Amino acid sequence: MNFVEIGRILTPHKQAAGTPIQPTCATGIEGTVVVYPEYAEGLKDLDGFDRIWLVFLCHRATPAAMHVIPYRDTVQRGIFATRAPARPNPIGLSCVRLGGVVGNRLTVFDVDILDGTPLLDIKPYVPEYDTFEVQRCGWIDQADREVRVADSRFQR
Amino acid sequence: MNFVEIGRILTPHKQAAGTPIQPTCATGIEGTVVVYPEYAEGLKDLDGFDRIWLVFLCHRATPAAMHVIPYRDTVQRGIFATRAPARPNPIGLSCVRLGGVVGNRLTVFDVDILDGTPLLDIKPYVPEYDTFEVQRCGWIDQADREVRVADSRFQR
Repeated sequence: MNFVEIGRILTPHKQAAGTPIQPTCATGIEGTVVVYPEYAEGLKDLDGFDRIWLVFLCHRATPAAMHVIPYRDTVQRGIFATRAPARPNPIGLSCVRLGGVVGNRLTVFDVDILDGTPLLDIKPYVPEYDTFEVQRCGWIDQADREVRVADSRFQR
Repeated sequence: MNFVEIGRILTPHKQAAGTPIQPTCATGIEGTVVVYPEYAEGLKDLDGFDRIWLVFLCHRATPAAMHVIPYRDTVQRGIFATRAPARPNPIGLSCVRLGGVVGNRLTVFDVDILDGTPLLDIKPYVPEYDTFEVQRCGWIDQADREVRVADSRFQR
């Protein structure tokens, strides 16, 4: 699988410890997505969307583990039942608010991503496609730890 | 970037033409996700979630184009403003309904994915993390073509 880095995500989060664990824990935090010039044409029409998915490589993730203790829990869970970065394929997914597009640079908000993260893809956030009502949300339904920022357990 | 295939997605969709363009266009269509045995332990606790994100390789995508005419439109749009598979990194993202987990096999519904698709990752769908209200949805706000299935323009 020949995936390529199509840009880089610049954020104020220089280390895992203290980085918000989700965009919903990072409200208003600004970042910049620099898309490499050869892909800049693909950004046409993106500025009409309020939110976008960033798909990225968790380049500082610790090696994959099949069981992890998530930030919001105290017992081990299967890695695929969590959003922890220590996955077989460390692909990150964050829905950020799009502030604007100027040339090949995007201003984004609600950024929970480490500085210097390699960008793999951008997709528009479309509620019609991406919003679902669910009744059950597994262990998260019982998670009562009010954790909003990471420590260094899953990323260096 | 050394991504690995961690499983395979089996579906009734043998060719792009006629395949639903999103899970919301595939309500009730059943598929099976076979996770390779070495990753099966990572599925622990997943069965408590009603929906899951499948992250996959669009293995039959046509070469990347910076501009495409989306199914629901009639003019060219920047690739990153669309969900078309003909992307620099052909990473697909579908939120499917989880019917059950038995060993290393997942029964899923609302499947818009081609048969035999290589699986890259599974993440739980968490409305608290993944649901956002937006005011503007770009060209899709004006898209009036009622297209629910694909043709062969983006996948072989």
